[in-house]
Amino acid sequence: MTRDEAQALDAADPLAFAQGRFRLPEGIIYLDGNSLGTLPAATADRLANVVTHEWGGDLIASWTKHAWIDEPQRIAAKLAPIVGAKPHELLIADSTSVCLFKLLAAAVKARPGRRTILTQQRNFPTDLYVAQGLAEMLGLTLKAVPADEVASAIDQDIAVVTLTHVDYRSAAFHDMAAVNQAAHAAGALTVWDLSHSAGAIALDLDGTDCDLAVGCGYKYLNGGPGAPAFLFVAERLQGELHSPLQGWMGHAEPFAFDDDFRPVNGITRFLTGTPSILALAALDAGLDTFEGVAMRDIQTKAGALSQLFIDEVEARCGDEVCLASPRDPAARASHVSFAHPQGYAVMQALIARGVIGDFRAPDLIRFGFAPLYNRFEDAWRAAETLAEILATDAWNEPRFLARAKVT
Amino acid sequence: MTRDEAQALDAADPLAFAQGRFRLPEGIIYLDGNSLGTLPAATADRLANVVTHEWGGDLIASWTKHAWIDEPQRIAAKLAPIVGAKPHELLIADSTSVCLFKLLAAAVKARPGRRTILTQQRNFPTDLYVAQGLAEMLGLTLKAVPADEVASAIDQDIAVVTLTHVDYRSAAFHDMAAVNQAAHAAGALTVWDLSHSAGAIALDLDGTDCDLAVGCGYKYLNGGPGAPAFLFVAERLQGELHSPLQGWMGHAEPFAFDDDFRPVNGITRFLTGTPSILALAALDAGLDTFEGVAMRDIQTKAGALSQLFIDEVEARCGDEVCLASPRDPAARASHVSFAHPQGYAVMQALIARGVIGDFRAPDLIRFGFAPLYNRFEDAWRAAETLAEILATDAWNEPRFLARAKVT
Repeated sequence: MTRDEAQALDAADPLAFAQGRFRLPEGIIYLDGNSLGTLPAATADRLANVVTHEWGGDLIASWTKHAWIDEPQRIAAKLAPIVGAKPHELLIADSTSVCLFKLLAAAVKARPGRRTILTQQRNFPTDLYVAQGLAEMLGLTLKAVPADEVASAIDQDIAVVTLTHVDYRSAAFHDMAAVNQAAHAAGALTVWDLSHSAGAIALDLDGTDCDLAVGCGYKYLNGGPGAPAFLFVAERLQGELHSPLQGWMGHAEPFAFDDDFRPVNGITRFLTGTPSILALAALDAGLDTFEGVAMRDIQTKAGALSQLFIDEVEARCGDEVCLASPRDPAARASHVSFAHPQGYAVMQALIARGVIGDFRAPDLIRFGFAPLYNRFEDAWRAAETLAEILATDAWNEPRFLARAKVT
Repeated sequence: MTRDEAQALDAADPLAFAQGRFRLPEGIIYLDGNSLGTLPAATADRLANVVTHEWGGDLIASWTKHAWIDEPQRIAAKLAPIVGAKPHELLIADSTSVCLFKLLAAAVKARPGRRTILTQQRNFPTDLYVAQGLAEMLGLTLKAVPADEVASAIDQDIAVVTLTHVDYRSAAFHDMAAVNQAAHAAGALTVWDLSHSAGAIALDLDGTDCDLAVGCGYKYLNGGPGAPAFLFVAERLQGELHSPLQGWMGHAEPFAFDDDFRPVNGITRFLTGTPSILALAALDAGLDTFEGVAMRDIQTKAGALSQLFIDEVEARCGDEVCLASPRDPAARASHVSFAHPQGYAVMQALIARGVIGDFRAPDLIRFGFAPLYNRFEDAWRAAETLAEILATDAWNEPRFLARAKVT
């Protein structure tokens, strides 16, 4: 493909309008929106308004005057079309790890007598840590099996199955409907981590009969560094499930200051403490970047961007790198990994040339494609830059080989 | 006291310089910094810089380039002189409720065989909800006794004693040293909630032999609505205690992406998920309002402000209100409550006249004095306004009597 051809794809892109919703630094090709989404154009003013006029001007009255008290539900509702759920099945709260703890704990409590949490080997690490912590706390077993054996490993002792939908290394993903069906057939619940899915590919949580899910606000949802997470609880389960992490924001009457916890009806019972209104405002602006966007278009463009990148890298770099993601676009989410024995140094050389991706040990260079703001020309130029680096061994410099703390 | 005399106290106030560190709305007397601290003058620019230059400009590289990764510890260290602890005993994380769950869970795990969590009746509600949730999860007993019977109720079955240091209604406070000593004599641990203490009165967590503590960032610490909380773990306990809410930010090598959780040494093991960098930036600016301030001066001024207010209210209002806080200034923290049968309407009438306090059911009007920005003239004018309202029954209007959602 020529650069002109890539530019022609951009000219025909039905999502091209969305790029103007972001502030992208000049001269940078940012392919790391799967780690930290870029800054939306509206965020700075939105935050300044909340800080100066709401907090600074109206102070404590803002909880009602500016409806701060309703923000975890109001903002979460914007996720409904992005993940395929009902607005009142979604809530913004805490971090992804804390949300996962809440929902796993609620799930195991709802399945008394069952002693095992099932997950896959090499699940996203913090998800494993959360499940380990809960299992140790309650004397449960955490069982991890290979990804393709999860559905067949669900038996009568499994209380809950927890999986990251999209693998953070390869972008391969689980068949949600199939796992949910297998879990339900055995009487188990499912908790999905959507951190590498939400905003990148089309999801249908209700249509695939998901029970519970959590996800990250700072990747494809563009909510800013460490943005609050979201959680999903299917409407049919909301009366039955209780998080042990109970706090006043999930109380039926938080301002009655009762001594005893009485969970409010609905999704709000999964709130715990007071949420950061500043962090919520930034996530709100992040979610607004999806306004009027069809997730079908997101998924189509994600597949096309990553395919262009794979094709160009393989055509230009030959055997120097090895594709570590599914070759079939229908089996791949929105990022692409290649293995290279000096992956760390190769990524540093790319970053030095303004192509920002990331490195995952031991040998993966990873490129995330955010359909709202990444262009086909970005993918083309990233492939060209990678090819130049490999052709000239430009990665083989002390400044690139020396390992710093990796984020 | 005359208004001139109150103004003379302001002129002689050694903390007067600190008022310039805040943006206070014109014409408002804000006596609710114990619910939501006012906006520091530096916060808007600090946040704008983090949003536009760090996130927007340097994107993912900011985790190292701007040391985002170290913020929970770096910012917490500013609390050390405020609470009387070592910098490395403090961490910013999550919400107060989630932090309390972490530390209570860590404490009961460290005292195996003991089956009871001890607290006081009418403890701050969310603290009760958190302890109830944990106790139910682990099959423990939550025992609540009257505040003055806590120390004598600590026996060999108590794993942990959890108390709010300063009562949110009356501003009476526990003797930390005495409770800690009684707990330690019986082999129990203590977890203090400092939400209504930190930044309002002098604390000495290390000198009084505290084990564990949590506190709120959005009250006297001026961190903004829903600011992240802080937690304290005494150095001597950091090797022994483990939070079951474990996540990648508390891992020894978070970027090694190991399958198994290995907690890092020190306070950082109490981190779970990725913290909001925007919320942390605002809290950082909030804590900077204490720079160069002696907590002894804070405590002295808090006592003097609240005493002036009590004296003026009682001199002007007679029996119409009843003091619901300790009369002895040495037994009182930084807020004052009066009971009035129509407390809700009285507070609405005060707010309508620009005196912002809050109402706590069933009958308390509550006034928080933040020594960094409240003036003696504020306290004097608040008392005068309250007296006017009571003398004229100005609260007796439908618009003040109709209950809205109370914050």
